[in-house]
Amino acid sequence: MELRQGRRVIVWPLDLVAEDSAGCAVSGMGAPTVGIEKLPRGDEMWAAVRALQGYVGRQADYIVIGEIGGGNSIAPLVAAAQAGLPVIDADPMGRAFPELQMDTFMIGGVKPYPFALHDAHGQTVVFDQVLDPFSAERLARAVTTAMGASAALALPWLTGEELRRTAISGTLSLALHMGRAIRHARREGVDPIDALLRVSGGKRLFHGKIVDVDRRTTGGFARGTVTLAGLDEDEGSECRVAIQNEFLVAWKEGKGGEEVLATTPDLITLLDEETGDPVGTEMLRYGLRLQILGIPAAAQLKTREALEVVGPRAFGYDLDFKPLSGNLGDPFFLAERKKSGEDLP
Amino acid sequence: MELRQGRRVIVWPLDLVAEDSAGCAVSGMGAPTVGIEKLPRGDEMWAAVRALQGYVGRQADYIVIGEIGGGNSIAPLVAAAQAGLPVIDADPMGRAFPELQMDTFMIGGVKPYPFALHDAHGQTVVFDQVLDPFSAERLARAVTTAMGASAALALPWLTGEELRRTAISGTLSLALHMGRAIRHARREGVDPIDALLRVSGGKRLFHGKIVDVDRRTTGGFARGTVTLAGLDEDEGSECRVAIQNEFLVAWKEGKGGEEVLATTPDLITLLDEETGDPVGTEMLRYGLRLQILGIPAAAQLKTREALEVVGPRAFGYDLDFKPLSGNLGDPFFLAERKKSGEDLP
Repeated sequence: MELRQGRRVIVWPLDLVAEDSAGCAVSGMGAPTVGIEKLPRGDEMWAAVRALQGYVGRQADYIVIGEIGGGNSIAPLVAAAQAGLPVIDADPMGRAFPELQMDTFMIGGVKPYPFALHDAHGQTVVFDQVLDPFSAERLARAVTTAMGASAALALPWLTGEELRRTAISGTLSLALHMGRAIRHARREGVDPIDALLRVSGGKRLFHGKIVDVDRRTTGGFARGTVTLAGLDEDEGSECRVAIQNEFLVAWKEGKGGEEVLATTPDLITLLDEETGDPVGTEMLRYGLRLQILGIPAAAQLKTREALEVVGPRAFGYDLDFKPLSGNLGDPFFLAERKKSGEDLP
Repeated sequence: MELRQGRRVIVWPLDLVAEDSAGCAVSGMGAPTVGIEKLPRGDEMWAAVRALQGYVGRQADYIVIGEIGGGNSIAPLVAAAQAGLPVIDADPMGRAFPELQMDTFMIGGVKPYPFALHDAHGQTVVFDQVLDPFSAERLARAVTTAMGASAALALPWLTGEELRRTAISGTLSLALHMGRAIRHARREGVDPIDALLRVSGGKRLFHGKIVDVDRRTTGGFARGTVTLAGLDEDEGSECRVAIQNEFLVAWKEGKGGEEVLATTPDLITLLDEETGDPVGTEMLRYGLRLQILGIPAAAQLKTREALEVVGPRAFGYDLDFKPLSGNLGDPFFLAERKKSGEDLP
């Protein structure tokens, strides 16, 4: 809609950001199960940025994607178009995570305040000072829940220096290239999932059909478990995936007992076996036939400090992180990009 | 402590407030059961006012007592002393109520935003815009609960014109005179409860001993019921009082069946039968011997508009308001004050 109105999205690579500039990250906060049912007004994110600008007393120089996963990858582009500001080709997750402290800005010590929440009714709350990122999460979650489990979040306000030091570079381009690879494969009549794996560096973890979805919207989150019965090469096995807005741990149970296939922070991605379309936690339903992929996380999420915040134990699972090989961005930037000789963005 | 440090509390009568001046009301938000266990830092209220001043971009001319009941009658005086601002001899309840929309400012249409919450850890949240007083309550309650069920609230920011139009005048003086009447009676060896009734215009509702306290801290409130077995003239009867931070409805059950003794917005006050000390919902325990008094509410709380917000049905009780005779302030201002020829404050 913004594009049809003549607005344009300008994307800047991370190394174009001046160290003494400043801007803020935006994302949607709340349960995705609610997010897809509540009609957004369309300018909530930009309104959240304006509220934060008013509080810090200056204009933002750029908009940052707060989380590249799901709808949160698109809404910041809309906000940037409305604001007439560039959006940076980077984000602090290289995936989606359910809680505020779970990003490389917070892990890297960027101040978690001030920040702003804004809802579809125009209600605006500015958090002037909080103790730490966990308190930011607790307070913001409480307000989001009271707002009906869906709000636009402008957090954090950060300098160009902080952004360049902590963000995961190139994740917007990577998402675009994943999308292009899938579209291209469909046009050519080849398997879109193979194409996606080539660009992302991921691997197939399980092939199955959903036989059970146990999902509740509680405490502002969609939580639960999805269970798949194996098909083809996975016939006779079951796969369980734990959910908190995102997919966190995948286990395979078969003749040989239980095996951990992948854990957070690596990405566990569920795709429709035919179309390659992603199936988010809010779209799960009995009978869907899926491929489960594992895609390696960005290197910044695998440090000891990061794993304390985004590893399996941070979510209450008594498991060590079992890394998939590679790092998000590596295969694309090192292989695909060189191969195509293409310039980005 | 503030007085010992040489600070002074300056009290202004309501009619000294200039219509074009501005200030804000302060109170503690949260469950009193928690409030008495968490040690306050001592300057939370003044910090909440400073946060709101920063947001509206001007200094307050005065501090208003957000609720004259319990600890909330003293803390605004401390904040006023710290701020070097006068406190106004008025409040918007003439008692205590558990929710934000339940005061004559909100009933009278004063804007419920911006407002600020501040906790003992220094965390500060500014509510820039909310839909209505009920939304203010819902959002602020969520934050207060996430802050540990105790926070300082600066709400609303209001002009002198709004204050003079909506506040209940003289309630700070009335509280001081109630205290003086009780102290004087104790010194003279006469019944302090009789003295209090003379100043407040209230009446005795029940005399009994607590035989059951059913109280939970839930959703940021202390809720439940206290049951008393009658003593002396009430021997053979029971009295049940419903609680949501405050005492809301008192029923008597005896030979003649069930009878409503008093309902909100009239005050239901529990006093130690010997000392006349008030017993708040957070101090209830088995075996306490109490006099239950009914004290008529201020006239502003008995209009049709007000009863929709503070009458029994607003709290979920299928009862009509059964008013006690008189209005808060009347007996004191019309009788006691004339009699003594005393000047106030």
